[in-house]
Amino acid sequence: MLASFASDNYAGAHPEVFAALTDVASGPARAYGADPWTSRLGEVAQRHFGQQALVYPVFNGTGANVVSLMSMLPRWGAVVTSRHAHIENDENAAPERVGGLKLLTVDAPDGKLTPASIDQQAWGWGDQHRAQPLAVSLTQSTELGTVYTPDELRAITSHCHERGMRVHMDGARLANAAASLGTSLREITTDVGIDVLSFGGTKNGLVFGEAVVVLDPTAVDGVDYVRKMTMQLASKMRFVSAQLLTILDGDLWLRSAARANAMARRLRSRLDHMVAEDQAPGLRFSQPTEANGLFAVLPPASAERLREDFAFYDWDAARGEVRWMCSFDTTEEDVDTFAEAVGRELRDAAGTR
Amino acid sequence: MLASFASDNYAGAHPEVFAALTDVASGPARAYGADPWTSRLGEVAQRHFGQQALVYPVFNGTGANVVSLMSMLPRWGAVVTSRHAHIENDENAAPERVGGLKLLTVDAPDGKLTPASIDQQAWGWGDQHRAQPLAVSLTQSTELGTVYTPDELRAITSHCHERGMRVHMDGARLANAAASLGTSLREITTDVGIDVLSFGGTKNGLVFGEAVVVLDPTAVDGVDYVRKMTMQLASKMRFVSAQLLTILDGDLWLRSAARANAMARRLRSRLDHMVAEDQAPGLRFSQPTEANGLFAVLPPASAERLREDFAFYDWDAARGEVRWMCSFDTTEEDVDTFAEAVGRELRDAAGTR
Amino acid sequence: MLASFASDNYAGAHPEVFAALTDVASGPARAYGADPWTSRLGEVAQRHFGQQALVYPVFNGTGANVVSLMSMLPRWGAVVTSRHAHIENDENAAPERVGGLKLLTVDAPDGKLTPASIDQQAWGWGDQHRAQPLAVSLTQSTELGTVYTPDELRAITSHCHERGMRVHMDGARLANAAASLGTSLREITTDVGIDVLSFGGTKNGLVFGEAVVVLDPTAVDGVDYVRKMTMQLASKMRFVSAQLLTILDGDLWLRSAARANAMARRLRSRLDHMVAEDQAPGLRFSQPTEANGLFAVLPPASAERLREDFAFYDWDAARGEVRWMCSFDTTEEDVDTFAEAVGRELRDAAGTR
Amino acid sequence: MLASFASDNYAGAHPEVFAALTDVASGPARAYGADPWTSRLGEVAQRHFGQQALVYPVFNGTGANVVSLMSMLPRWGAVVTSRHAHIENDENAAPERVGGLKLLTVDAPDGKLTPASIDQQAWGWGDQHRAQPLAVSLTQSTELGTVYTPDELRAITSHCHERGMRVHMDGARLANAAASLGTSLREITTDVGIDVLSFGGTKNGLVFGEAVVVLDPTAVDGVDYVRKMTMQLASKMRFVSAQLLTILDGDLWLRSAARANAMARRLRSRLDHMVAEDQAPGLRFSQPTEANGLFAVLPPASAERLREDFAFYDWDAARGEVRWMCSFDTTEEDVDTFAEAVGRELRDAAGTR
Repeated sequence: MLASFASDNYAGAHPEVFAALTDVASGPARAYGADPWTSRLGEVAQRHFGQQALVYPVFNGTGANVVSLMSMLPRWGAVVTSRHAHIENDENAAPERVGGLKLLTVDAPDGKLTPASIDQQAWGWGDQHRAQPLAVSLTQSTELGTVYTPDELRAITSHCHERGMRVHMDGARLANAAASLGTSLREITTDVGIDVLSFGGTKNGLVFGEAVVVLDPTAVDGVDYVRKMTMQLASKMRFVSAQLLTILDGDLWLRSAARANAMARRLRSRLDHMVAEDQAPGLRFSQPTEANGLFAVLPPASAERLREDFAFYDWDAARGEVRWMCSFDTTEEDVDTFAEAVGRELRDAAGTR
Repeated sequence: MLASFASDNYAGAHPEVFAALTDVASGPARAYGADPWTSRLGEVAQRHFGQQALVYPVFNGTGANVVSLMSMLPRWGAVVTSRHAHIENDENAAPERVGGLKLLTVDAPDGKLTPASIDQQAWGWGDQHRAQPLAVSLTQSTELGTVYTPDELRAITSHCHERGMRVHMDGARLANAAASLGTSLREITTDVGIDVLSFGGTKNGLVFGEAVVVLDPTAVDGVDYVRKMTMQLASKMRFVSAQLLTILDGDLWLRSAARANAMARRLRSRLDHMVAEDQAPGLRFSQPTEANGLFAVLPPASAERLREDFAFYDWDAARGEVRWMCSFDTTEEDVDTFAEAVGRELRDAAGTR
Repeated sequence: MLASFASDNYAGAHPEVFAALTDVASGPARAYGADPWTSRLGEVAQRHFGQQALVYPVFNGTGANVVSLMSMLPRWGAVVTSRHAHIENDENAAPERVGGLKLLTVDAPDGKLTPASIDQQAWGWGDQHRAQPLAVSLTQSTELGTVYTPDELRAITSHCHERGMRVHMDGARLANAAASLGTSLREITTDVGIDVLSFGGTKNGLVFGEAVVVLDPTAVDGVDYVRKMTMQLASKMRFVSAQLLTILDGDLWLRSAARANAMARRLRSRLDHMVAEDQAPGLRFSQPTEANGLFAVLPPASAERLREDFAFYDWDAARGEVRWMCSFDTTEEDVDTFAEAVGRELRDAAGTR
Repeated sequence: MLASFASDNYAGAHPEVFAALTDVASGPARAYGADPWTSRLGEVAQRHFGQQALVYPVFNGTGANVVSLMSMLPRWGAVVTSRHAHIENDENAAPERVGGLKLLTVDAPDGKLTPASIDQQAWGWGDQHRAQPLAVSLTQSTELGTVYTPDELRAITSHCHERGMRVHMDGARLANAAASLGTSLREITTDVGIDVLSFGGTKNGLVFGEAVVVLDPTAVDGVDYVRKMTMQLASKMRFVSAQLLTILDGDLWLRSAARANAMARRLRSRLDHMVAEDQAPGLRFSQPTEANGLFAVLPPASAERLREDFAFYDWDAARGEVRWMCSFDTTEEDVDTFAEAVGRELRDAAGTR
């Protein structure tokens, strides 16, 4: 493969993250989080998210989401979310099967929930027949490559809190959102009323590792127990914590995300230009490019041929929609090579074939 | 702390394992196991366990156990196991809560099951009121530091298979058992009729990582789906696979385990000698030392004082039993320093205090 | 209350059903289904559904649905169903929480699935990230009072079976569908390829009691165990079986359902007539009346006032939609009194108020 | 069969209970507990159990136990109980599978827990690796036919409450215990500190029906939701409530239980007499007869022959132990016939065969 635009988890580890692993690799350390790196991670997380924040490192993004939601909800709880949400589509029903949670989905054409769309499912409190909608889960940046503004987030959290619902943010790509908006992490989480955050590390250059970050400790119960029983408690936790520490203790989280976003913008710009010049016949974009992913519609046969050299996924095969993701290690050359290939293929397809 | 005898997961990463991580750290690779290292791991695992073996890397030991057992059992299944088993005591009921499995425990004074002890719970097939005992889970080496011989294992698997029960081995410390017995991995797994194995990596020098190794593919169903839904599927799986590959592709698994065992034997020998010479008053051992752990009874006040300099856990506080674990990075100096400290403390305690 | 149009479960027991209870009330009988009435029920069910049919009495409709679906699906299974389905809306997520199942919902404006709508969610087999759509659940008669024709059912089951999906029918009101279509029970279940049926008794005049009827025994596994573990196994099962036997051993199931349907048709006809004559201003029907339920839109204030004398539920409060159900014990007088009251209220509301 | 000593659930319905069913059989009533009989049941239950008591009718005993325990415990909870407990042995792991609960069992040779035996498992609070023992479940009268005194119960509840554990009572045969002790229901529940009670109806002469009785409302959360999601919510609840009302609103609960107990005592007395006279060779009793069950050891071949005429279960087949239960409808003639048959069989077996 010449380059991958499949997913930000096709990337390896960022060299600075890897260097941090090296530093903690040898010698004994207390297991299960009683090590100094996990302690320091807690302090650094509080610098980002406020003094009340509590951080629980876990293995992966599905784990972060399920631990978060199980800690926020009683057994009779349900979660209102977008029908494009990762928890709905890509976790083989882990929230339901492991957590016993019901997901109540609503339409979200651009991947973003609104107070109005939430209300399609947020009702029926007190009715014993209905799974109780006690939390909302939104994704920032979204599964469709879009980004909630702070105002949009505040509108949702106010709306939910007034109705007794907590708000969870799936922040597998939170850094990309902050980079896109030019805000701190806090300005789009704690400051806008998010209660619990799944903070993404793997797609931000880690070997592996995410964290449940509790922004409002009154929103959860039993996180420690839930993390263990869902098999998300690492014994040699220093290796997760040291990586998260590395991206959060300076601006690496931002540099990596900004780079991924910039590469996505560059790709979009190159291709928009071609489209405008009629040099990419059959190509159109189905979403704005606000973070590190592009959503494009092109003839399936062309997509197929492009895959001989470049990795990427179908998003909605039925309508010929594909997803192109950039990551911290995508290069300008990767982008330019790919853009050229896309244009060439589409022109070829429109011509002789 | 001068040295840790708390757990083999207090150790860091073995340098050769870490070097392997370095080799795979950069560049794109297909996610979720479609990478070359995971492929090669499959081949290497077959060299160890037979051509039929299938390997599924996961995050941690609890995950390996739960994925194994869920893949082996229908919803109405139950698992006969020792009352000292890790799955019974140390997984916050993950098998029950995530897998919906019932554990049926039996006494096992030395940590080892026998056909006779299994029969205390292996009955009632066809009775709809009783959780159906369709699998046995045993641990090699055991939670009490003992080791099943190949004959003992064969006796159990024959007994179980005749009754329609499958056999799972929790091999978090399988390497230590093989090193202790002087056998290959295969001689105490595939060759003696084990159906599914949780193969331990973390305690054998990995940063993190274990594997479900299916030794008899007819014993399981849906492992891929179960791994994902239990949140044990790593996106950047190359990082798990490359580590497992490193220990399994040569003899590193054996060297690390042999070293840990040797250190445990050295400690036992030092202390046995002291006991024989009456230089460790109040110390006695509650189990034979066959792998890398010692189980000792000593006055709780002495244990408490020793903990000021050395990390180790209580095993059964009610009777003053503690556990001392050695790992691949335990040194002879660690052992000798500790043995001296134990003797000194016990003599002091017996004297003036 | 003058009369109830709230639900067919507001009705009591049919006198013939109750008489049957009386007959079995005293004397010993083997528990848990080893009694003669349960045996005979099995035979009678085979007369209705074919020699291969197996019947498992349970307590209630949610129980019948969950036991059916759990018996049909592995742990990684998902169920495609209508977004109006009882299993989706009215079971407090029992399928997810008790069964670990994922429901994949599709739009169904008239309550009925079609091959095309099923395909919106029936895809992704073999993808470990996606809950596997291995069954479809449809409701006959539907939650919206409509009825699938045998041809519609056959089209669905063929479509599903070709794709490796099994078909479950929630037949809480199966009798009403058969009465409406003029078919036998078999012609709309076994003969059209349904695999497993939740057969409804409670809404057909029982004190309590439903049954899982397995129409294709190769479609299920472990029903006995699943029924017990989900707490749907009655100890004094004779009392469930004797009731089911009473409605199935003659034509009582049909007489009761036909009566309920006739009353619904009468009410619809009365009100349609008023609407045509402009005597029920503000009333319109949102669904055809094919079984025993009517779905009507009327001014909420009028609905509220009618509730002072008659019981009925809102269906979709947001658009002023209510549901009026008839049951085996609804009388012509009930219907006429209610129709008059509706007309009077609507005219009053349109007039002076 | 001449008579059944198999289980109190082999009995039918008590005529007075059945009469109550008749009274409520016809006419509409609000579903799901909003009917007058359920209201009155609440009042009557408060007369028995105190003004704070809340009653939730359910279908069966396993349901009552699981709803109780799930309402009392968070997701990380575990329940200390006897290894003879119904929840451990006879519910196909419903507490684990439906509730995600861990059962921590202790020995109880006479079926009764004690503070000391509870402490074998009641430890490890705050340790994330250990399922948290936050409740104890005891059975009154026990599965072995013995009865806790009020003092024994008070000792347990004090012990548990001091340690932050709640106490659940499985009272499937509570009435038999009260009849045996000569106490009110309250004196062995509310007054001794029980938090939540599974109150048994089926074995006390009901067609079906039990109740979760919350004695301390601060001990539970979400009972309504839990009852629905575990499929224990009856739609025509009047039929459960009216039966429970009948036994509780007068002294029928006591009369039925006293009768069953008296028949058990009579049988024990007859057989003790024979044993004393050497007229029942090979018979001995393994438990005192304090409620309505006898536990006896006799030669298996004799047990087998007796089963040609009388129904009863093996209790511990390995040691030739059987259980003989009496119920409200056991007659003196049943007892005398059976006692004679036992003696004759044992003498025959000891003689010529």
